[in-house]
Amino acid sequence: MDYYSASLSRLINELAKLPGIGNKTAQRLAMHLLKVSKEESSALAHAIIEAKDKIRYCSICFNIADEDPCHICTDQKRDRSILCAVQEAKDIIAIEKTRDYKGLYHVLQGAISPMDGIGPNDVRIKELIIRLQKEDVKELILATNPTIEGEATAMYISKLVKPSGIRVTRIAHGLPVGGDLEYADEVTLAKSIEGRHEI
Amino acid sequence: MDYYSASLSRLINELAKLPGIGNKTAQRLAMHLLKVSKEESSALAHAIIEAKDKIRYCSICFNIADEDPCHICTDQKRDRSILCAVQEAKDIIAIEKTRDYKGLYHVLQGAISPMDGIGPNDVRIKELIIRLQKEDVKELILATNPTIEGEATAMYISKLVKPSGIRVTRIAHGLPVGGDLEYADEVTLAKSIEGRHEI
Repeated sequence: MDYYSASLSRLINELAKLPGIGNKTAQRLAMHLLKVSKEESSALAHAIIEAKDKIRYCSICFNIADEDPCHICTDQKRDRSILCAVQEAKDIIAIEKTRDYKGLYHVLQGAISPMDGIGPNDVRIKELIIRLQKEDVKELILATNPTIEGEATAMYISKLVKPSGIRVTRIAHGLPVGGDLEYADEVTLAKSIEGRHEI
Repeated sequence: MDYYSASLSRLINELAKLPGIGNKTAQRLAMHLLKVSKEESSALAHAIIEAKDKIRYCSICFNIADEDPCHICTDQKRDRSILCAVQEAKDIIAIEKTRDYKGLYHVLQGAISPMDGIGPNDVRIKELIIRLQKEDVKELILATNPTIEGEATAMYISKLVKPSGIRVTRIAHGLPVGGDLEYADEVTLAKSIEGRHEI
């Protein structure tokens, strides 16, 4: 039995497909969209269509962008001798927000995960190797996630790249700033001690 | 500084306007919408536009519906002698899901709340009174929320309607089914004792 009108139930169903949005939240969002002005709700609808139409992957670094190549790859002020490999495009945003890194990026679009059937050929490792051969890169920073899959991907890439003489580094593991030693898990704490440096 | 491409940041901004959706969630939802097929993302966009275009308020009960009058008001199998007044259209869904109530509804579209500057004329009380005069209603169930505003609205309506001889009832307060006496707040427990009935 359908309690909603046809178009409302369609809207709720579509909203409920979004990650982390359950049926109740979808209902609340739909009610909100019905309440706001027509301009406001259609602004959202058009933003979805426009983003889907305009956004493409940068053919160099596989970042998501309105233009190809993306604004980072075309930025001449960036240090072209450092390349930072990340799993997802959103990781670029996270690193950019630090305002600390001025090199280029390479989005792997995933991590090696044999359990999920994702092998080295399913992520953009081949494209990374080709870039390293063509471009004059001095250092490759592996900024994949500190998970089993991310570590495996970093190890795999490092073994492939090291023979070519390029410096391969991995982002540091340790306690988060503002974190508490007492609440840190053992693996993080062990990594933190292992990565200690003189002050 | 803008880390996202123009159309992506527009999408994130629009998503972040939804209630309960913060910036991080909006970013996650946007990334999801970019990942899914074009059909899937445009289905959502079109559902928003269509719902906004098609859905109107029922001119009788102020329920949201694709048609006017709504499918509940036009349903001849419903008991036209009972009317249930609720605050919001979504409350109708909640009551309908019980499959217990077979009468008609009246959506007040809010509750009296002097603190927020909402008086009796800002909710659909006048329309309710006119309906009660025109239609042959024997009982009016006040199903506003068990909040201060909902109670005030119920009291206000009951004082207006009672002189006309229509039976005015209020939904029961008490412990929720499956609830625990130990964890019930005092007001609910007091209402629950007050509303006791023989078994």
